[in-house]
Amino acid sequence: MTTRKRISILGSTGSIGLSTLDIVARRAGDLEVVALASRSDFRGILDQARRFRPKVVALFDDQAAADAKKGLEGAGIEVLCGAQGILEAASLPDADIVVSSVVGAAGIMPTYAAVQAGKVVALANKEALVSAGAVITAEAERRGARILPIDSEHSAVFQVLMGQDRKALRKLVLTASGGPFFGKGPGILEEVTPEMALDHPQWKMGPKVTVDSATMMNKGLEVIEAHWLFGLPGDRIEVLIHPQSIVHSMVEFIDGSILAQMGVTDMRLPIAFALGYPERMDLPFDPLDLAEARKLEFFRPDFDLFPCLGLAYDALRRGGGVPASMNAANEEAVDAFLAGRLPFKEIAGVVKAVMDRAPAIDDTDLSEVLKCDRWARQAAGEIMLSFGGAA
Amino acid sequence: MTTRKRISILGSTGSIGLSTLDIVARRAGDLEVVALASRSDFRGILDQARRFRPKVVALFDDQAAADAKKGLEGAGIEVLCGAQGILEAASLPDADIVVSSVVGAAGIMPTYAAVQAGKVVALANKEALVSAGAVITAEAERRGARILPIDSEHSAVFQVLMGQDRKALRKLVLTASGGPFFGKGPGILEEVTPEMALDHPQWKMGPKVTVDSATMMNKGLEVIEAHWLFGLPGDRIEVLIHPQSIVHSMVEFIDGSILAQMGVTDMRLPIAFALGYPERMDLPFDPLDLAEARKLEFFRPDFDLFPCLGLAYDALRRGGGVPASMNAANEEAVDAFLAGRLPFKEIAGVVKAVMDRAPAIDDTDLSEVLKCDRWARQAAGEIMLSFGGAA
Repeated sequence: MTTRKRISILGSTGSIGLSTLDIVARRAGDLEVVALASRSDFRGILDQARRFRPKVVALFDDQAAADAKKGLEGAGIEVLCGAQGILEAASLPDADIVVSSVVGAAGIMPTYAAVQAGKVVALANKEALVSAGAVITAEAERRGARILPIDSEHSAVFQVLMGQDRKALRKLVLTASGGPFFGKGPGILEEVTPEMALDHPQWKMGPKVTVDSATMMNKGLEVIEAHWLFGLPGDRIEVLIHPQSIVHSMVEFIDGSILAQMGVTDMRLPIAFALGYPERMDLPFDPLDLAEARKLEFFRPDFDLFPCLGLAYDALRRGGGVPASMNAANEEAVDAFLAGRLPFKEIAGVVKAVMDRAPAIDDTDLSEVLKCDRWARQAAGEIMLSFGGAA
Repeated sequence: MTTRKRISILGSTGSIGLSTLDIVARRAGDLEVVALASRSDFRGILDQARRFRPKVVALFDDQAAADAKKGLEGAGIEVLCGAQGILEAASLPDADIVVSSVVGAAGIMPTYAAVQAGKVVALANKEALVSAGAVITAEAERRGARILPIDSEHSAVFQVLMGQDRKALRKLVLTASGGPFFGKGPGILEEVTPEMALDHPQWKMGPKVTVDSATMMNKGLEVIEAHWLFGLPGDRIEVLIHPQSIVHSMVEFIDGSILAQMGVTDMRLPIAFALGYPERMDLPFDPLDLAEARKLEFFRPDFDLFPCLGLAYDALRRGGGVPASMNAANEEAVDAFLAGRLPFKEIAGVVKAVMDRAPAIDDTDLSEVLKCDRWARQAAGEIMLSFGGAA
């Protein structure tokens, strides 16, 4: 690449963060880490800081920040703490690219800060666009910030749309693995344990995303994310089950031509694409062997069996506070499920109940979006109590 | 489209020509026919001329031209005849786009003439690039002529490469249906009749292309064509059997990402793409339904069972007069097979024998290429006599 890109990684100790650092390590001539941020994993941050020598590290948790400060004494690395510390890492003047891979709605403010600072934002956090898509895309436009998706689906769409006639776009087709329960029959959904939900057949991801994948809420969030990234209404964004996860997504044009992006199921590929953009980096990973894969299958999703997908389409259609409410309620419900406090099948019920009471808000006002998020978490808690679920 | 495009169709009464006219009829506001050319089908030309009102029609066959002249008396349409007539239609000053869909090496000179006249050449005739790729691509460069492939495979590659980083190209993957004999076991090749070879499972095409598809020589010709269109050596152009013919071809980049173009098996789609380029036209054909198709399969080709494919790679590697010799010998052998004068299994043997004797020529000299083509046809005839085949 022509100049070395300086990267700030928000959520560096999570799954996307680790994959990002793997790419940086392989391409040290092209990429350089200037900031690392984590919620509370100070041991992880210490290891990473010693290896990648950033200018700053940030920990949301005060105690973790204090421990990191101790561990990095004399290393010449500034340690930031709290929400403010994360926001500073997100808007660091030294950073060219901000990898936004904080999990959940906690990623809204850092993503907004990076966009406000006019960065190239490599976005893995889909909740930011789901809840605050109107605010963030308008701010990106205003500040000349570029949002490059890291989700494999949106990266696929982004890649195939490069250089194409946008006016000729008919629809997007997001593929979904279907998660661990696709094709297993409705019975299995009655008895899902966290272990079962976390056993994803194709992708290695964090627990929140993996459970969302099992309910298909993940695909619903992606539909809303795709709406904000590519400007199409929900009825022009389709979902197709593709258990092999080789076709990462597709675009159909008005002449009937479909362009698809394919690859192995390795998050390092879309991450590397975002970091290298507009150039592609030469990567030594085993390429996809279609003759080995042999068979690609496609099925229509079952909206009855996976109601979260339909809820997301509904949220996108209704707009206002509904997407943020849906997202917040889902996060609370998934937390409760992972903690053994809510049956898997009730996740959609909690989300729907909160959506049905969502306030009308001005979704171009970030403070209203955040207030709505807080309201929805509380509402979800109350509803789960009535389910006999939440603590 | 911004301006109405004026089209000359060489081979208008063949399969590609008919599909081209179907598109023109649907988009009369954007597309207009100024010339129609056919070998000898004056009845077909008359019907088309009355419907599409071109400025000129051209027939290679003198008698057919005379009959057409009679039929079009007073219609204000000029009738051209002979090789010279076809070349005039190919370089008509009024034409913006020349659709080059003459079958076989007969397409070399008209394609060259269109390129020499600086036209946009929508190229269906693959033999022109196979035999005279060096001459034609150099002339296109010199004259600023743009070659837009109409073959579904090359159209697919062209479409996915638009706007992509060409330096990052790792390889092309051309898909092949495998033809009617894929997966049927070697035994079937012993007893192939013309009827069997002409019964293609996926694509409706003319007889020459359909037999080439059954021997896989068609895919070999496409490998060479892809070399000239996209500038990659043969070892970076792969062939993959894909019996469903839904993925029309693919491109792999250095980061492992694969971009593919898909669609229904309808030649009108790549034709419309070439005619509309750089815009896509809104077409009312049924779009591809992947959930309906369900399953896409991929297999490595069997070079032992389909030796013509390996011969083509060999011809591309050896260069000089070998590709032109291979192509001419193949045309003669296919003719003999269709006439019942050569067993299907001997087509490859005839081609190989001619290739083995191919003269060293300067393949940037069109007259040498054409001389080589004539030599190879004669050599093929002699060899077929020794097979006990040719008349």
